[in-house]
Amino acid sequence: MDVEAIVAGVLAGDRRAIARAISLVEDGHPELEALSAGIYPRTGRAVTVGLTGAPGVGKSTLATELVRAEREGGRSVAVLAIDPTSPYTGGALLGDRVRMQEHATDPGVFIRSMATRGHLGGMALAAPEAVRVLDAAGYDEIVVETVGVGQAEVDVAAATDTAVVVLAPGMGDAVQMAKAGILEVADLFVVNKADRDGAGEVVRELRQMLHLGAARSWDPPVLQTSATEREGIGELLTAIAEHRDHIGTSGELVSKRRARLLREVESLAAERFRARAVAVLAADGALGSELEARRIDPYRAAAMLEDQTAAAPE
Amino acid sequence: MDVEAIVAGVLAGDRRAIARAISLVEDGHPELEALSAGIYPRTGRAVTVGLTGAPGVGKSTLATELVRAEREGGRSVAVLAIDPTSPYTGGALLGDRVRMQEHATDPGVFIRSMATRGHLGGMALAAPEAVRVLDAAGYDEIVVETVGVGQAEVDVAAATDTAVVVLAPGMGDAVQMAKAGILEVADLFVVNKADRDGAGEVVRELRQMLHLGAARSWDPPVLQTSATEREGIGELLTAIAEHRDHIGTSGELVSKRRARLLREVESLAAERFRARAVAVLAADGALGSELEARRIDPYRAAAMLEDQTAAAPE
Repeated sequence: MDVEAIVAGVLAGDRRAIARAISLVEDGHPELEALSAGIYPRTGRAVTVGLTGAPGVGKSTLATELVRAEREGGRSVAVLAIDPTSPYTGGALLGDRVRMQEHATDPGVFIRSMATRGHLGGMALAAPEAVRVLDAAGYDEIVVETVGVGQAEVDVAAATDTAVVVLAPGMGDAVQMAKAGILEVADLFVVNKADRDGAGEVVRELRQMLHLGAARSWDPPVLQTSATEREGIGELLTAIAEHRDHIGTSGELVSKRRARLLREVESLAAERFRARAVAVLAADGALGSELEARRIDPYRAAAMLEDQTAAAPE
Repeated sequence: MDVEAIVAGVLAGDRRAIARAISLVEDGHPELEALSAGIYPRTGRAVTVGLTGAPGVGKSTLATELVRAEREGGRSVAVLAIDPTSPYTGGALLGDRVRMQEHATDPGVFIRSMATRGHLGGMALAAPEAVRVLDAAGYDEIVVETVGVGQAEVDVAAATDTAVVVLAPGMGDAVQMAKAGILEVADLFVVNKADRDGAGEVVRELRQMLHLGAARSWDPPVLQTSATEREGIGELLTAIAEHRDHIGTSGELVSKRRARLLREVESLAAERFRARAVAVLAADGALGSELEARRIDPYRAAAMLEDQTAAAPE
């Protein structure tokens, strides 16, 4: 399948073409530029929801329930689970996705794990392009699920229209979440596994932490769910819809999407430059030797490398 | 204090100068280049240990115990805790550091939290420069503690000589850790809170996961500690020393440090370029408008921005 066929397939909503397109993104394939050019004019319609939180809080179960609820409302949904590439993960992730099998035969649902080590910008740059593929393919809603609670994962979740942060009792308290920088990017908090001991305490602690932060135009609600029991999902959908209305009315949706796009282009340009800098540095062994001998420091070497790369032919 | 005085102070081991130097790194201050040039010739002597793991597994308590044990062995230690900047964290982190107060009056110990949003390359580029400051100041060992278990945190931990991954019973199982991409960067595993129910299970599960990975020249041991009870700390120190001997003898220490340095310089060059690209994009509103109107896609816009930035005067 060549890239023109992939583009045509994506725009027609063909599942095999969508899968191929996301693989191009995942691999950082040279055809990615043609793919991007082909699909971009048809993007901008889908709404996006980010799901982030510590391992084990139940993000995948919650995503499954969100999919079910959106389908009951007649909307099509795609789930993009961002997984760091790991030789260990194959089986683990497959096991995880099995829970979503009830949606596997539904043409209105598309579920995909994406590894990102091949893309030159990592998950921060692979995720938005994969989201655009799903957007161009016509899905009404795209759920982006991240694994882990680090800075990169928080940034990916924050790059959605509505960022949902998931916690659970016994999985690190709110103070710990605050340390991961996660509180200020959340548009909504979900305390999942709310049937477990300590859920009320997590909610209270979280609300206390939130009171310490700067006032914002949107006050992030703290909801309780029990995804395996399917409790609280309706309330979550309502809260997501309310947040979406808020950013739509306030103009934040447009301004945030524009700012995200400009930052993405800046990062893509920097990553293109980095790829050239790697080649320049590899071709010129002198700079590496001077560095190792501690005759040039890293910051000076970076300035020299920047000049050499800018002057080098592409 | 000007940058020459800061450099002189760092090289003399003056605590106030070290703190000022790390603040320059944290802020991405323009004087950072002069600081780097001044200290770099005096680096390369310290050994580094990374501590990473989910929030709540007890990394700070473990760091405190490592400091105590190293001090008993007569070695000086610096602890660098990498915290994402957050309006919520001030109090929380202070509370955390209180546990280290027993070391506060010991001149052989330096403890510092570092926020990284000011540095143009985030924690991945701020951490190695801060480590070099502590190295040049004469600390024998530098412990780098990250908060969160995402890709960026894993990368920071992996950029130390010996990366220790900390787990605890009930804080997400080994499968969840594997999903965060954490298994393959670990040189050592510590199951902390080993006195709690489920510790043995975490150890077994972890060993099973490790057997699934590719064979490596160093087989990462799985240790058990109870940091609050000060149990298992001696074994951890022995294991760290064994790993250090292994990489010293095999030549990996030298080759890994060289590769890290070259990657850092490439990233610094890319970040310098990005800063210029931001200015170019801001000065030329046309590219942003064409993007928003969907007449140019992000990948094409990035290529255009790269060309414009390379051609623009610095």
